[in-house]
Amino acid sequence: MLTLFHAPGTCSLASLITLEYAGADYVVHKVDFSANEQRSPAFLALNPNGRVPALQCARGVLTETPAILLYLAQTYPAAALAPLEDPFALAQVQAFNSYLCSTLHVAHAHRVRGSRWADDPVAIEAMRRKVPESVGACFALVEAHLPAAGWVSGAQAGISDFYLFTVAQWLEGDGLDPAAYPKVIAHRERVRALPAVQKALAACGAEGAGGLSVMPGVSP
Amino acid sequence: MLTLFHAPGTCSLASLITLEYAGADYVVHKVDFSANEQRSPAFLALNPNGRVPALQCARGVLTETPAILLYLAQTYPAAALAPLEDPFALAQVQAFNSYLCSTLHVAHAHRVRGSRWADDPVAIEAMRRKVPESVGACFALVEAHLPAAGWVSGAQAGISDFYLFTVAQWLEGDGLDPAAYPKVIAHRERVRALPAVQKALAACGAEGAGGLSVMPGVSP
Repeated sequence: MLTLFHAPGTCSLASLITLEYAGADYVVHKVDFSANEQRSPAFLALNPNGRVPALQCARGVLTETPAILLYLAQTYPAAALAPLEDPFALAQVQAFNSYLCSTLHVAHAHRVRGSRWADDPVAIEAMRRKVPESVGACFALVEAHLPAAGWVSGAQAGISDFYLFTVAQWLEGDGLDPAAYPKVIAHRERVRALPAVQKALAACGAEGAGGLSVMPGVSP
Repeated sequence: MLTLFHAPGTCSLASLITLEYAGADYVVHKVDFSANEQRSPAFLALNPNGRVPALQCARGVLTETPAILLYLAQTYPAAALAPLEDPFALAQVQAFNSYLCSTLHVAHAHRVRGSRWADDPVAIEAMRRKVPESVGACFALVEAHLPAAGWVSGAQAGISDFYLFTVAQWLEGDGLDPAAYPKVIAHRERVRALPAVQKALAACGAEGAGGLSVMPGVSP
């Protein structure tokens, strides 16, 4: 049994979708950001970095979306979540996911997490102002990279699709015009239509909904 | 034959060390940041993100340090660069590398690359001021995680060691007191003493030095 520590609206949605798509035996612990649970001693004992996702496994806790997604792809090979038998194609998947993690997500984080990198409120506001430009540049690169139909890598949906879908949730909130990214938006709709994604989204918004086994009382 | 697009002082050192340690057949193309070569049309055709490292392989170009390092670990299994046969242990390695990439390196980048996230010079200066605190918090987490001796993962040196060594080069320049991170510093010295690291560092500072086959004239 795996436990995903997840917060709605965050990048941990990618891990949630992947667990659901893979048919994993898992529960979700919703981390209450409104109560700053991610900075609580119990959560920091689990993930000293104080962020979601964190995936509690029998042997310990895994963090960082690209690592969790690859782990799930390797653990549930029947789900064909990544090109595991082809190191070059797998590296392309990991490069794509790493770009989302370390460049696109980081640019997005300057909208509401500017205090990670500056204390001056004027600076934090200046970061917020540049988000449409910096995140827009990332989505422009993704737009250029994406195929017009189908999936990020290969003939079926996989971890890069679920990760891109997750960060594409933020596009309008970051001040971007979806019309400028037609392939990203069409891809987002293709991913959204997958039954596993529907179930994950239903569970994401309301505890216990959507058929997932949600166990909000799990303590680390 | 692989070609690594590398710039001294950057995170591409981790890929250079890994290539050398693995005994790969490779050449280095030094990207001239002083001439803004990373934004040249030729380089952007190679990596639209305009950053190093980029690894030109027979089938195409790979980017992003965590992806390149895993690819090299899989391509040169005899070098035992990562626990390839143990998905959980491998995920721990990837989580560590992803943290260096998306949190520690990003915090560091606010010292000289603040213009990625704000235009206001006052904001850029405010980011620069917080670097000792934000990067220091990252190294404090790494310090707590590191064993007192040996390597990040397992009984021998591997990709996480080379990546940590690379980012630990920046510690003093980011305004941190090395005395506060004794395990990080001792690890840095252990990695530096490895012959492959010595060769990579010698090649890194001066074209053609150190026994590496450096080919600065490669065009993408």
